[in-house]
Amino acid sequence: MSTWTLDCFAGRVRSTADLVSRVCDPRFLNPQTGPFYVEGAEPGDTLAVHFRSITPREARGVSTTVPLFGSLTATRATAMLHDPLPERTWVYEIDTDAGVVRYDALDSPFQVDLPLDPMHGTVGVAPALGEVRSALAPGDWGGNMDTPEMRAGTTCYLGVNVEGALFSLGDGHARQGEGETCGVAVECAMDTELVVDLVKGGPPTPWPRLENDEFLMTTGSARPLEDAFRIAHTEMVGWVRELTGLSSMDAYQLVSQTALTPIANVVDTNYTVVAKVAKRYLPDVVVMDGTHGGLRRS
Amino acid sequence: MSTWTLDCFAGRVRSTADLVSRVCDPRFLNPQTGPFYVEGAEPGDTLAVHFRSITPREARGVSTTVPLFGSLTATRATAMLHDPLPERTWVYEIDTDAGVVRYDALDSPFQVDLPLDPMHGTVGVAPALGEVRSALAPGDWGGNMDTPEMRAGTTCYLGVNVEGALFSLGDGHARQGEGETCGVAVECAMDTELVVDLVKGGPPTPWPRLENDEFLMTTGSARPLEDAFRIAHTEMVGWVRELTGLSSMDAYQLVSQTALTPIANVVDTNYTVVAKVAKRYLPDVVVMDGTHGGLRRS
Amino acid sequence: MSTWTLDCFAGRVRSTADLVSRVCDPRFLNPQTGPFYVEGAEPGDTLAVHFRSITPREARGVSTTVPLFGSLTATRATAMLHDPLPERTWVYEIDTDAGVVRYDALDSPFQVDLPLDPMHGTVGVAPALGEVRSALAPGDWGGNMDTPEMRAGTTCYLGVNVEGALFSLGDGHARQGEGETCGVAVECAMDTELVVDLVKGGPPTPWPRLENDEFLMTTGSARPLEDAFRIAHTEMVGWVRELTGLSSMDAYQLVSQTALTPIANVVDTNYTVVAKVAKRYLPDVVVMDGTHGGLRRS
Amino acid sequence: MSTWTLDCFAGRVRSTADLVSRVCDPRFLNPQTGPFYVEGAEPGDTLAVHFRSITPREARGVSTTVPLFGSLTATRATAMLHDPLPERTWVYEIDTDAGVVRYDALDSPFQVDLPLDPMHGTVGVAPALGEVRSALAPGDWGGNMDTPEMRAGTTCYLGVNVEGALFSLGDGHARQGEGETCGVAVECAMDTELVVDLVKGGPPTPWPRLENDEFLMTTGSARPLEDAFRIAHTEMVGWVRELTGLSSMDAYQLVSQTALTPIANVVDTNYTVVAKVAKRYLPDVVVMDGTHGGLRRS
Repeated sequence: MSTWTLDCFAGRVRSTADLVSRVCDPRFLNPQTGPFYVEGAEPGDTLAVHFRSITPREARGVSTTVPLFGSLTATRATAMLHDPLPERTWVYEIDTDAGVVRYDALDSPFQVDLPLDPMHGTVGVAPALGEVRSALAPGDWGGNMDTPEMRAGTTCYLGVNVEGALFSLGDGHARQGEGETCGVAVECAMDTELVVDLVKGGPPTPWPRLENDEFLMTTGSARPLEDAFRIAHTEMVGWVRELTGLSSMDAYQLVSQTALTPIANVVDTNYTVVAKVAKRYLPDVVVMDGTHGGLRRS
Repeated sequence: MSTWTLDCFAGRVRSTADLVSRVCDPRFLNPQTGPFYVEGAEPGDTLAVHFRSITPREARGVSTTVPLFGSLTATRATAMLHDPLPERTWVYEIDTDAGVVRYDALDSPFQVDLPLDPMHGTVGVAPALGEVRSALAPGDWGGNMDTPEMRAGTTCYLGVNVEGALFSLGDGHARQGEGETCGVAVECAMDTELVVDLVKGGPPTPWPRLENDEFLMTTGSARPLEDAFRIAHTEMVGWVRELTGLSSMDAYQLVSQTALTPIANVVDTNYTVVAKVAKRYLPDVVVMDGTHGGLRRS
Repeated sequence: MSTWTLDCFAGRVRSTADLVSRVCDPRFLNPQTGPFYVEGAEPGDTLAVHFRSITPREARGVSTTVPLFGSLTATRATAMLHDPLPERTWVYEIDTDAGVVRYDALDSPFQVDLPLDPMHGTVGVAPALGEVRSALAPGDWGGNMDTPEMRAGTTCYLGVNVEGALFSLGDGHARQGEGETCGVAVECAMDTELVVDLVKGGPPTPWPRLENDEFLMTTGSARPLEDAFRIAHTEMVGWVRELTGLSSMDAYQLVSQTALTPIANVVDTNYTVVAKVAKRYLPDVVVMDGTHGGLRRS
Repeated sequence: MSTWTLDCFAGRVRSTADLVSRVCDPRFLNPQTGPFYVEGAEPGDTLAVHFRSITPREARGVSTTVPLFGSLTATRATAMLHDPLPERTWVYEIDTDAGVVRYDALDSPFQVDLPLDPMHGTVGVAPALGEVRSALAPGDWGGNMDTPEMRAGTTCYLGVNVEGALFSLGDGHARQGEGETCGVAVECAMDTELVVDLVKGGPPTPWPRLENDEFLMTTGSARPLEDAFRIAHTEMVGWVRELTGLSSMDAYQLVSQTALTPIANVVDTNYTVVAKVAKRYLPDVVVMDGTHGGLRRS
């Protein structure tokens, strides 16, 4: 399936003179493409979304600061008596052929090329319990996890909560650092090719999981950040146990010595942590009925 | 300088039958080598410790669970009404030539080789304000940060708080996952070669920093985990600003798009987060008067 | 207005043999009465709800433990490898005339009378940004704050997010401790008399506030718990500044020396903290156009 | 025993023109009186300290803001890119006879009398494991808990970690709000009369506990704030279980419906929460061998 997504500002931030608080309406931030009704998807199933390619639609992306948003500023939740930090907008040239995005400082002539690494910040299904959540929130339904692992070549597994799954995606990033420190990545509209599959009849997928050729990954989205860690690692211990037949304590031990644990975001309404275990440490296991390999070759 | 360190159990855990709560005295956990008095070190200086090599002293390491310690269990601080998780001990064969440590499950025949990646969990100087801290605690003095980045080839920068710095190290790990999930890595005694230098007259080093050939790294140790993140990233923004002359907001933006942010530990009395920025994104900067390169070649 | 509410289990937990995980459907926990459309209520207005009386509808209430729910247990967010704590149900006799509820231990003959102190755990309006939230969640729209301050004699102020406000209430408690430690209060159906008013044209009410004859109160609902504290106290500093004309730093100082800060809940999807300042320390101020006094006398 | 304590600034802040960052040396903040060697005190014992009277030594107290310290500001741990909040000093007239302290706004003519409620912010013994901790830190040894419950009429129980206990106290407050929002109470030197006793042979006291004529109280000091809550409440559940013979789940239930939970501080290196249960709900129990009553009458 080929689709495309708007950037998180719906294209309204076009130059360094466009400040989010002036040009954007908070009700329409982070517009998603979807929801897509997936035929046959039922609660308890797992939706598999494989990203074949994610390509910036334009030759530039933008990043900004937003008042009272970000990890190194007072926010609405981490409420303080400080005035907001300055609001600024940066524009990045994107050179898809060279595979770089160009950072241009605003207050000095500093300029540097960074690797292009396109991904989707927001990928999710409808939440459980009848909730309707803002596209700015990540949780067990996926959503605004903002992990750079959501790139082409990766399969994302999402537990289905409602009939048809109601899958959506958006918030393309030409690249981002781990943590999305200032709250905003190099935002751009994307052309995205993806393949969707359903895993039926297996154990449920309580939190989003990812798989690429090298790694199995679990995610946790919560506050404080250690709860996001605890979710991701409890999920990984359980997944390794299921896949290998190891006891719970043996799986805990193996994960303790093998997990990579990059932070995804420390800025959204929940913070997100990813746990990664290399598949070569789990020889001969079959993951999600071989879905990733199947979609990879499809 | 060549030195060696005991493992964190002072060698008292020798087999899968040795449980920490039975064979170890909590007062003597995590014994350090040192403190070393560094001639000429004065408060305000930065101590640079370059690790040339870190080599397991024996052909095996151990890992364990410890009652009420670890990230996926109730602890003394995250106090709950649960009984402690089971206490177990794993023994890892270490093959230094092959560069692997062998994980052996306790409850099933599963076995897998993992890459040997030796490091020191605990590296520090005397704290400020006259405090004396347990070797189990990490903080602005360094200490028990438990980051796998503390490997051979890396230079660790520590702000000096007292005359002579009083440097110490220990807690060798044959390898560990990021987060040190169960609280215990593959623990082993180490033979360590290191070179020490002093950086005088520069800006102070408020929290430990690391440098290798590829990355600049900052650390933060605090609870909750987002405060550790905030420290590490505020430090990185400040360091990038100093090195490049970028404005504070420009440095914030550059770090936001370039930082890698692996979690170090979510188990110690403070949690530790590392922020990493590739030096290639900061061309032509001179870091700590070129100390890392100097020690590397020495 | 006279209304009534079901208990949080919709009346399905009737005896010590009824365990929540067996008799309740998670989709139908904490049923609310409402939503009520308030004529004339528009976004930016403040809805004032004054509780005249809250009276248990039956001669007994129930409390329970619920697997993976509560403050002293692993939960879905504070995910761990422990088995859930035991699931139990307690039944309390309520004697409305004597003003007591009787605690009866399950495992020993211990029995003690506690003061009846009826309140509503859940009071709220529709959230902003088009979200639909579970009745188990507290937030800036009010919701499941679980503060014992929500008793008869109190006026609750809620910022209106949508036309008609869509006010609802439920989750009656015959009494609860501060923090709602095990996650469940003495739950019972309630007969409630309340008066509703609208405050138009004043400054917005970003987080729920309460007022009784003695105190002004602000609330914050967030995780970690210190963020809930920060919200409640930032709100109180701002409110005192507005009411008195004090500078921001002077209001910060006055709140620092006068606030009472009881914890409301440490169990819900957000934790809630209340900040209270006695009105006698703010002489001659007019709060919300005198709404509380007006409703009190009405 | 009669003793006296300096204020937390060692008397160096005398007027609204004295700013902490200019007149105080961080190494000498919060000076304590002691340590006192208690004859016969051994590790495992409980030290009981009963406060007979706490009386301001002078007719005024001071409060301040301190750069990067307090609950509604970025700090060294909650590190951000904001500039520090303004540094200010307030002077309070203390009228011991009238029982009031007078708040005087700096930026407007507002003035109000607040009840005098003298207490000690810092009360502790030597920590375990050979640590030496700053007088600014609270923990399981007591220390800088900053709870207004530490007033005359209260007995504080502290677990003894070293021979002689090494008891100390200081940081007198003429009054403070719960949370000590700005980080500084109404600080003043105190004349204090106290009686000390030892409880030998009972169960250990892992975290400080308090008792007055009406309440049993437990404390927890940790970050994040929910961990302080968890400690205080786990301690209370355990204490109630021990005193009453209730099962653990029955004690959990009783504490859930009866605890008051005022926050003590959200500003120190650990945050402190107090849990309180009225003794009338625990009829016929004997607490700490009746130590409080004995000291009260002595």
